[in-house]
Amino acid sequence: MQQTRLDTARIRAARRVIDPVFLDTPMYRCEALEPGLGCTVSIKLETANPVRSFKARGTELVAGMLAGHASRAVVCASAGNLGQALAWSGRGRGLDVTVVASRFATRAKLDRIRAWGAGLELVDGDHEMARERAAAIARCDGIRLVEDSLDIETCEGAATIGLELVDTEPSFDTVLIALGGGALATGVGHVMKALAPAVEVICVQPLGAPALTHSWRGRRVVTTDSTDTIADGVAGRRPIPAVLDDLLLVADDAVLVQEASIIAGMRMLLDHAGLVVEPSAALGIAAILEDRDRFAGRHVVTIVCGSNVDVDAYHRWVGAAPLHTP
Amino acid sequence: MQQTRLDTARIRAARRVIDPVFLDTPMYRCEALEPGLGCTVSIKLETANPVRSFKARGTELVAGMLAGHASRAVVCASAGNLGQALAWSGRGRGLDVTVVASRFATRAKLDRIRAWGAGLELVDGDHEMARERAAAIARCDGIRLVEDSLDIETCEGAATIGLELVDTEPSFDTVLIALGGGALATGVGHVMKALAPAVEVICVQPLGAPALTHSWRGRRVVTTDSTDTIADGVAGRRPIPAVLDDLLLVADDAVLVQEASIIAGMRMLLDHAGLVVEPSAALGIAAILEDRDRFAGRHVVTIVCGSNVDVDAYHRWVGAAPLHTP
Repeated sequence: MQQTRLDTARIRAARRVIDPVFLDTPMYRCEALEPGLGCTVSIKLETANPVRSFKARGTELVAGMLAGHASRAVVCASAGNLGQALAWSGRGRGLDVTVVASRFATRAKLDRIRAWGAGLELVDGDHEMARERAAAIARCDGIRLVEDSLDIETCEGAATIGLELVDTEPSFDTVLIALGGGALATGVGHVMKALAPAVEVICVQPLGAPALTHSWRGRRVVTTDSTDTIADGVAGRRPIPAVLDDLLLVADDAVLVQEASIIAGMRMLLDHAGLVVEPSAALGIAAILEDRDRFAGRHVVTIVCGSNVDVDAYHRWVGAAPLHTP
Repeated sequence: MQQTRLDTARIRAARRVIDPVFLDTPMYRCEALEPGLGCTVSIKLETANPVRSFKARGTELVAGMLAGHASRAVVCASAGNLGQALAWSGRGRGLDVTVVASRFATRAKLDRIRAWGAGLELVDGDHEMARERAAAIARCDGIRLVEDSLDIETCEGAATIGLELVDTEPSFDTVLIALGGGALATGVGHVMKALAPAVEVICVQPLGAPALTHSWRGRRVVTTDSTDTIADGVAGRRPIPAVLDDLLLVADDAVLVQEASIIAGMRMLLDHAGLVVEPSAALGIAAILEDRDRFAGRHVVTIVCGSNVDVDAYHRWVGAAPLHTP
């Protein structure tokens, strides 16, 4: 394939930098999901770690590099998972971490960012406004800006998931990847194309936050004015050109799913896999639900990428039906 | 220490027989739980695998041995998790698996036993009656009876969790282990006493199913006439003498907890760790909740041993409060 910005040798080396608590995560077939989905389904579970998402694979690389530098201050914008992960990785290395987030972000995520000891600044707008503010802080204070999906460490950290996938027996046909800024998709996609090119790489984004999918389809950056989705972790409006370039090289498809399918996916993961997940982590199941014929008879891996939810919102989304079951 | 029936070298060898999907499970500190518990808490997560409990570590050993024999039929009594695990391990090796269970067993567990292709026979009584019936089937048909906690494979399979715990950095002070028939407690306890004797081994059982705890305290087998607990996985009435002998050698304490504490533990694991667990898996958290002073300042590991619940019952137990939160 043409070259992405990512490097497979560097991704292998990243495994030696990342705290092992984030590596070699569970990967298992979940047959209880299969009657409802019509295909073989395996779960790659990225929630059973201190920050309950895959994001620390990337922040461990960022923090590992900064720990050797004179300037130990760092800032990022985050919908909540990157911020938690950077706060966790920074705390262990004595970094001064600032996270900028929307004041509308998931409360549980903001609470954990504070609990990990990071400075938290809230902006009165969405994630794109948080990105602008984080960049301004970095410029003013002359400190390191961690930009999710643009910074190669965030992509190559996520890409270590891909290494674990290709080591799996038996092999699989398709991997479904939540598409937000693109770090997870370009990371895992790069490894698949490099080491397991027969595997189909499908990115999944909410219809209510379709900017990067539209960009991928149009082969040029398309922005949107707003987002409307419960999948807070993937609700971006302004794709990054360099990330789109990589995504064009590694993604076989990018699909959009409805909110109702995301909720149905969350409920299936609860009912049949015993997993509480955040909306972004149910995008893969949602994609299967919306196009069963496409996946029929195939072995599909879905990356369950995070479980940071507000419990009351989670119950509103998925709780009603089982509670009224006699 | 005096010799238990278990053998550390055999436990190490067991790792080569058990399907890797059940090994090297996540172990991580869960700081969000700590303000509510007053101690450092790490989770050893045994639910992220095809059968959603630790039981397959043992059934893999049983099935591995049977696969080399002429007789390929096997029967066990089960509250549901052993049966699922034996069905899973047997299916892959062409074994003819029969599971005997109480008709009052958790529906989700019975459904999965059938789904894994095992024969399922229900008895109109509790788990002790299922044990009697399974033994009768084994005698009549001349087939292998797998008796949980008595058969050394069930203990040594569970003991592989202990090997993973002692390999952990940083080390910890106490391990909390759900106590049912005793396989998990004697298995993990054996490894702790052999390889990490400074770690305190505390077994936790429901007040409503206290037979083995009373036996441990009295140093002789004590039975009860009935059980009354939602923790179906540990609701035995007739401890096995040989298992009690081992437990007396490896347990530093055995404590009993109330149903309300088990439910509070389940809710804490949902709210602060994002984990859906079955009641037995919340016994460790329940023990901390009932005796915070004892654990204050210590680093406690709790083994989250299973997540097979009926979703409607689960919501009845833990769902009410978050749903009524504004």
